[in-house]
Amino acid sequence: MKLDMERLKKQMAFIREIDKEKQIFRQTYISDGQRKENDAEHAWHMAVMTFLLSEYANEEIDVLKTIRMILIHDIVEIDAGDTYAYDAAAKATQHEREEAAANRLFGMLPEDQAGELRCLWDEFEAGETKEARFARTMDNLQPMLLNDATDGKAWEEHEVLLSQILKRNERTPYGSKVLWEYSREELIEKNVEAGHIIKDTLL
Amino acid sequence: MKLDMERLKKQMAFIREIDKEKQIFRQTYISDGQRKENDAEHAWHMAVMTFLLSEYANEEIDVLKTIRMILIHDIVEIDAGDTYAYDAAAKATQHEREEAAANRLFGMLPEDQAGELRCLWDEFEAGETKEARFARTMDNLQPMLLNDATDGKAWEEHEVLLSQILKRNERTPYGSKVLWEYSREELIEKNVEAGHIIKDTLL
Repeated sequence: MKLDMERLKKQMAFIREIDKEKQIFRQTYISDGQRKENDAEHAWHMAVMTFLLSEYANEEIDVLKTIRMILIHDIVEIDAGDTYAYDAAAKATQHEREEAAANRLFGMLPEDQAGELRCLWDEFEAGETKEARFARTMDNLQPMLLNDATDGKAWEEHEVLLSQILKRNERTPYGSKVLWEYSREELIEKNVEAGHIIKDTLL
Repeated sequence: MKLDMERLKKQMAFIREIDKEKQIFRQTYISDGQRKENDAEHAWHMAVMTFLLSEYANEEIDVLKTIRMILIHDIVEIDAGDTYAYDAAAKATQHEREEAAANRLFGMLPEDQAGELRCLWDEFEAGETKEARFARTMDNLQPMLLNDATDGKAWEEHEVLLSQILKRNERTPYGSKVLWEYSREELIEKNVEAGHIIKDTLL
């Protein structure tokens, strides 16, 4: 079969473009508390977590599909930026900004792969399939682990309320009841008691 | 089934420990040339590349297995540090340092997963299966893409010779002849001509 150089060049241009994800910083600190985490690091961490924790999914998941979804779930932030989970104003325009980003970025790929990545991203965003539910559980669990590792550094900086954390995690048990129970007891309750999360409601 | 809390705690401790991979910096610069890349970012980038480029593997590969291998291939560097491809002195002690690191780090996991990750890492290191060959092709291609994106910044800083690059890439075609041809023409030859790689031999 003759090599389709046009196709390969599109793939390579996309691979180079997504390097920019390493410059999109989140609000969470890495575990030494010295700097914030970027989207590429976050996606890597979530992917390893999926590989190790998939046994706790409520339903058996397709691990490769879940990892693919996780690896690309934040690529849109290259154009749209990171929207902090507790920033209501930014949340209001998030969908529109991310749609435009998905069109431009995934559109750099050959048509079949552009469609494949777009479908995976839409599936993640909708959060309805068992793989998307588990991926979103990882997306919520990973920053809680880092917040716990840094004695709630980002939570304290943003004066985050327990009610906000519970609201954000409404769907965390949909991916894994076991991991939600763990989060509640070992991450959230512990940090409420330590005063790193403002207790404005009951846990 | 009753939850094995001991098991879950070991997994969570490992997940927290590997966050340190975000502090292991490589010699390659990210595409804006402003700072060096760390191991977590490198692994994320390689995993997305595998997902997009597996069609060019010499033999059909198990993509999930390859991605798993890639996600964990640099975890040993948390203890052993990054060994620059063109640093002969560090290369001499690399194996011993990384073996000890693998024992400690993978040993934090429950026995079954410790064994699984150790096998994947050994397989990557040996580079003999089709998945390991492809993973190593990604490991060589990814920094060349970044070097090209930064006009050979790390190559110039280290005064890298063409012969060193060819030696390092001896096995790159074993994973994908197509991607090696692309690398030779679009990444190496181009940067030799531009003077970013010292031409001490024929290409």
